[in-house]
Amino acid sequence: MGRITQYVAGMVLLVFSFGAAMADALPSWNEGQAKQAVQDFVARVTDPHGKDFMPADERIAVFDNDGTLWVEQPMYTQLAFALDRLKEMAPQHPEWAANPMLKAAMDGDLKTLTADDYKGLMELVMVTHAGMTPEAFQKAVTDWLATAKHPRFGKAYTQLVYQPMLELMDYLRENGFKTYIVSGGGIEFMRPWTGRIYGVPPAQVVGSSIKTTFTMVDGAPTLIRQPQINFIDDGAGKPVGINAHIGQRPIAAFGNSDGDMQMLQWVTGGEGPSFGLIVHHTDAEREYAYDRHSSFGRLDKALDAAPAEGWVVVDMKKDWKLIFPSEK
Amino acid sequence: MGRITQYVAGMVLLVFSFGAAMADALPSWNEGQAKQAVQDFVARVTDPHGKDFMPADERIAVFDNDGTLWVEQPMYTQLAFALDRLKEMAPQHPEWAANPMLKAAMDGDLKTLTADDYKGLMELVMVTHAGMTPEAFQKAVTDWLATAKHPRFGKAYTQLVYQPMLELMDYLRENGFKTYIVSGGGIEFMRPWTGRIYGVPPAQVVGSSIKTTFTMVDGAPTLIRQPQINFIDDGAGKPVGINAHIGQRPIAAFGNSDGDMQMLQWVTGGEGPSFGLIVHHTDAEREYAYDRHSSFGRLDKALDAAPAEGWVVVDMKKDWKLIFPSEK
Repeated sequence: MGRITQYVAGMVLLVFSFGAAMADALPSWNEGQAKQAVQDFVARVTDPHGKDFMPADERIAVFDNDGTLWVEQPMYTQLAFALDRLKEMAPQHPEWAANPMLKAAMDGDLKTLTADDYKGLMELVMVTHAGMTPEAFQKAVTDWLATAKHPRFGKAYTQLVYQPMLELMDYLRENGFKTYIVSGGGIEFMRPWTGRIYGVPPAQVVGSSIKTTFTMVDGAPTLIRQPQINFIDDGAGKPVGINAHIGQRPIAAFGNSDGDMQMLQWVTGGEGPSFGLIVHHTDAEREYAYDRHSSFGRLDKALDAAPAEGWVVVDMKKDWKLIFPSEK
Repeated sequence: MGRITQYVAGMVLLVFSFGAAMADALPSWNEGQAKQAVQDFVARVTDPHGKDFMPADERIAVFDNDGTLWVEQPMYTQLAFALDRLKEMAPQHPEWAANPMLKAAMDGDLKTLTADDYKGLMELVMVTHAGMTPEAFQKAVTDWLATAKHPRFGKAYTQLVYQPMLELMDYLRENGFKTYIVSGGGIEFMRPWTGRIYGVPPAQVVGSSIKTTFTMVDGAPTLIRQPQINFIDDGAGKPVGINAHIGQRPIAAFGNSDGDMQMLQWVTGGEGPSFGLIVHHTDAEREYAYDRHSSFGRLDKALDAAPAEGWVVVDMKKDWKLIFPSEK
């Protein structure tokens, strides 16, 4: 390579690097306190000369799923899946008609289903999620997601993810973070698609689970999902789930409801630098507006606690330029 | 760069790459069937043009710990830890003297402790492993490992890891594999040191666990380890633990006892290419010789099953040039 060629190549490289450094990694976020807080935190923990520097293996970020990464209204997507599945399976189970909870489910009576600490919902999950291998269950989830449409937006549920949060996850990963999902939803309901949609592989998904057992069936090693709760990854269960799966205290947590409060407390209650953020659904026009009185994703105590705890509250309407990837 | 310089640089690069490809990644393994089988498997699944090619995100390898990666005789290391801890804590607990199991433990009566499906051992674990935060427990483990010595070899337990297996883990990782530990031992007993010793981070350790709860203690978010079994990651529990933590079927499994049999079955029972290996302890002089009649790490059914299942059996005496890193 001649001198001039070398020089030109050098300049191209320089301009390219400079351009990359200056490009906005969060284009769907309006300029404001929330965006600035995220960027400041990432800058602090990645500056090797700063006092808040954290080595890459400490850069763990946890994200709630329902209402934080995708839509959770008018009901949790997994509940929509369970209801569809119940109707599909019902003809083979005439005995379900005599079960008041399953009858409520078939009638779409969410009030009965969610009463008494979600007792009916659990029963619904057991009959629709158990008695099969994880592979068969994952296929059922994948098949359903391929055709089911959201009642209001008329799109596939996996299209109803929040573009600003996708950018945030990418941005963190580009800065050496490992991103985990820590959701009250079913771990095996999420794993078939979180890689494709969020860039989060199965091993980085933490969620609620039912018991699973191993047996040999006709000489074939087989796992079977049992109709029995194993773990509820919600509320005080979230720090427990994080400890079990990750084994380290994350330094950043993203949630949207009271079910994320203990996770936020745990993550931001350590000694080093940390970051907590709550997505506040304030946009009835583009998505939904709800908080203290919602059956799904209630945000009440955590919203009150946010100022004193130093958690950033995202005002969806004000802070997000767009909501869904399709608006790009 | 001139023509000649370019040519020389090219040759240097070529020689370097060739050298790297030819270097033996498993120098502590004697040439033989076991070493060859490992190398053949890795070559098959990493050849992008071969019919057995597996993309990197499918290259998951699981390793048992006790007896597969480190010494498990004359007793599991975690049991030695529990016994030492019991003696250390005993002066504060005069009531333990009236407990037959804890008395057996203090007297070193392993026979009583391991009888009746390890009932005494469980009791010992509860009083020595629970009632504290995971951080406090991990500190106790770290402090103990820093000073405790193996009764026969007089070395720290973390030095009594198998050099050929360390090389194997490195070799797999260099070929795009993710390495996990899947052990009957306590998940939080292993996590403080597996990164440093094996290159396996906390999130890639699967093991047995006791229940943990989250509470606020004087305003501080706190996890507390409870004296109650949560999960036994042994035997049929291993495929269940793998499914819970990894969420994918691994393609390679390494074990040494009947407790690894279901893991081997699960991993090698899938449709694609897979690999199973059993470390057979045949070297009484350099390490230990045991199999069908050992209280710790009994290898009986899995040894019988190996030929039909196609699992490679490592004959430690014959296949390993050296056992411990200190022999290098």
